[in-house]
Amino acid sequence: MKVEHDRILLAHGGGGSLSGKLVREVFLPAFDNPALSRLDDSAVVELTGDRIALTTDAFVVSPLFFPGGDIGTLAIAGTVNDLAVAGAVPAYLTCAFVLEEGFPIAHLQRIVTSMAATAAEAGVRLVAGDTKVVERGKADGVYITTAGVGVLRDLPAGWGAPSPGDAVLVNGPVGNHGFAVLATREGLRFETPIESDCAPLDSLVAALFGKGIALRFLRDATRGGVAAVMNELAVGHAWGVALDSASIPIEPAVRSLGELLGIDPLYSANEGTLVAVVAASDAERALEAMRAHPRGALAAVIGSIEDGLTGLVTLDTEFGGRRILDMPLSEQLPRIC
Amino acid sequence: MKVEHDRILLAHGGGGSLSGKLVREVFLPAFDNPALSRLDDSAVVELTGDRIALTTDAFVVSPLFFPGGDIGTLAIAGTVNDLAVAGAVPAYLTCAFVLEEGFPIAHLQRIVTSMAATAAEAGVRLVAGDTKVVERGKADGVYITTAGVGVLRDLPAGWGAPSPGDAVLVNGPVGNHGFAVLATREGLRFETPIESDCAPLDSLVAALFGKGIALRFLRDATRGGVAAVMNELAVGHAWGVALDSASIPIEPAVRSLGELLGIDPLYSANEGTLVAVVAASDAERALEAMRAHPRGALAAVIGSIEDGLTGLVTLDTEFGGRRILDMPLSEQLPRIC
Repeated sequence: MKVEHDRILLAHGGGGSLSGKLVREVFLPAFDNPALSRLDDSAVVELTGDRIALTTDAFVVSPLFFPGGDIGTLAIAGTVNDLAVAGAVPAYLTCAFVLEEGFPIAHLQRIVTSMAATAAEAGVRLVAGDTKVVERGKADGVYITTAGVGVLRDLPAGWGAPSPGDAVLVNGPVGNHGFAVLATREGLRFETPIESDCAPLDSLVAALFGKGIALRFLRDATRGGVAAVMNELAVGHAWGVALDSASIPIEPAVRSLGELLGIDPLYSANEGTLVAVVAASDAERALEAMRAHPRGALAAVIGSIEDGLTGLVTLDTEFGGRRILDMPLSEQLPRIC
Repeated sequence: MKVEHDRILLAHGGGGSLSGKLVREVFLPAFDNPALSRLDDSAVVELTGDRIALTTDAFVVSPLFFPGGDIGTLAIAGTVNDLAVAGAVPAYLTCAFVLEEGFPIAHLQRIVTSMAATAAEAGVRLVAGDTKVVERGKADGVYITTAGVGVLRDLPAGWGAPSPGDAVLVNGPVGNHGFAVLATREGLRFETPIESDCAPLDSLVAALFGKGIALRFLRDATRGGVAAVMNELAVGHAWGVALDSASIPIEPAVRSLGELLGIDPLYSANEGTLVAVVAASDAERALEAMRAHPRGALAAVIGSIEDGLTGLVTLDTEFGGRRILDMPLSEQLPRIC
C-alpha cells in the first residue's frame, strides 16, 4: 500500500493533489481502462446502438461487509442487474464515493477490489468516477452511487406484457441478502452462515435470450423481495400472480431465521435473484437455460399469472390454503443495500 | 403539498409504498418525462451517436442553500458542464439521493425544483433516479449524485492539444462560488451578497462550436479554481500557461473578501466558469461568441500558452512581477460542491 495516510482526510475529497493520489493509488490500479485512465471530467466511450438503458442506485448498506459480499459487490451488481433485467447489455458504469473523514483506506481498497472483481465478472467497465469526503459523523464510512448504461437487446414479442397462464421463475433460493445483512448487523452466528446472493445477473439473463423463449418480464428482486416485485408487476391488471409456497426455493437457515424473527423470506431483499415471467410453453426451456448457468442451478418455477386475481399476489401455502401477499409498506430492514 | 409526513422517514428509502409516494409526489411532478415516468429500474432512451461521454459527480455542499443556487442547481449544472466541456451535447441525467432521516420534505422539494429548472435550462432530461435514507447523524441533510450521458460533437482539429501562442479565455468573473458558500457558511453579510456562478454552460459551449473556431481545450473550473485547471492542463508539457492578473475578471466583493481572508480568487471554486483555450487568431471571435451569450457578457482573454514554461502556470501581477501559481494541494474549503 503506497498511500501515505492510512485514513481518509477531508483533503482526499478536495479535487487537488491528495485526491489525485487516491485516484492513482487506489482507484486506477483496480479499474484500469483507457477511458478512465485519461482522468478527464467525462469519459468518452464507443457505444453502438440507438436505444440505450440508463440506471442509477445509491448504496448505503450497513454493515459495509457481510457474508457473500460487501458494499462494493452490491454497487456494481445492483446497477448491472437493473440494466440486464431491462433487456440491455450492460456496457459502462460510473461510480461516486462519499467518504467519511477517518475511514480506513484499507477498507476502501477492499471495497474497490470487490467492485473490480464484480465488474470483471459482468464484463462492464467503470469509466468515470468522483470522490467527496465529509466530516466525521456526516456519513457512515462510505456511500457509493453507481450509474450504468447499456445497449438494449432486440426484445421478443410480448416483452413487458405478461398474460394469464405465463409461468413465474426464480434462479435460486430467495431472501438470502436481507438475512445475511441482518445476521451480521445483529451479530448472530450460525454453524453455516447465511450468505448474501449478491452477484451480477447479466450472463444469466443473456442465457435466456436468443433461444426463442417468449420472455415477458425480468426483474431482480431487491428491496421488498419477491413479494414486492410481484406486486409491482400485478398492480392495475385484471390478472394477478399466484405463487406456490412449496416450489419456492428457500435455504433452511433462511427459513429458520425467518420463522424465529417473524420475517417472511419472500419479503426479504435479494441482490442476485432473478424473477422471470415466460410463456407457459417455454417454462421448461427457460428453466433449463437457468439451470445450465452457475447462478441458476436451483432455479424453479414458483407460480403463474392467473386470471381474475385483479392485481393481487397470492401464495398457496403448504397446508392447502391461499393467502394474499401484500405490497410491503417499505423494506423491513433499513440500509439493506 | 400532498406528502403526509413533512419530514423524511427511514421508510421513504425502503423501496416500498412510502418510497413510491415520495417519487410520485415530489420527484415525478418536477422531472416528468416519459422515460422516467415508467418508473422501471432502468430508463430506456434513444441516443443517436456512437461516441458518447459519461460522467458522474457526488454533491455534498454545505450549506445546502446559498446565494445564487443550492445543491440541486449544482448537481445538475456540475454534470451538464462536465459533459459540455468534453465536447459532448448533454442528453440524459440520472440522480440518486442519500437523505438523512428527519430532513424536511419542503427542503427536498425546493432542491428538486432547482434541479428541474436547471435541467430545463440545459435541455437535459432526468430519466432515472434512486432514493436511500440513512439514520439521523449518518448524513448531513442530503447528498446528491448525478451521472450524465451526452453525445460527442465533431471536434475541431487540434482539440485536446493546446500549443504555444494559444489564448486562454474565461466567460466571466472567477471565484464566486467558493466565496458565496464560504460567506453563507460563516454567516458573513455584505451590502451586495456574493452570488455563486453555478449554472449550466452547455449553451455557452455550443456557441463556440460550428463557427470554425480552433478550440483546443474547454474546462469548467470547479474545485481548486482556475489555478487548478490551468495546472492540470500544463503539467508535463514544455510549455506553460501565463495568466495576466489585470485581465482576469473578479468581482470587487470577491476581491475584497479574498484579501481579507487570504484566499486567492484564482484558487476559489466556480460552478459556472468556462476556461477555453483557442488559437490566438480565433481569440477575438471566441470572445465575441461568449459575449453574445447571457453567461459570457464579461468574458475576457486572461492569458496565453507560453513556450518554455515547462508545465508551470504563472501570473503576471499588476505591479509588473511574475509569480508561479502552484497546483493546490486540495480545495481550500471542504464541501464546496
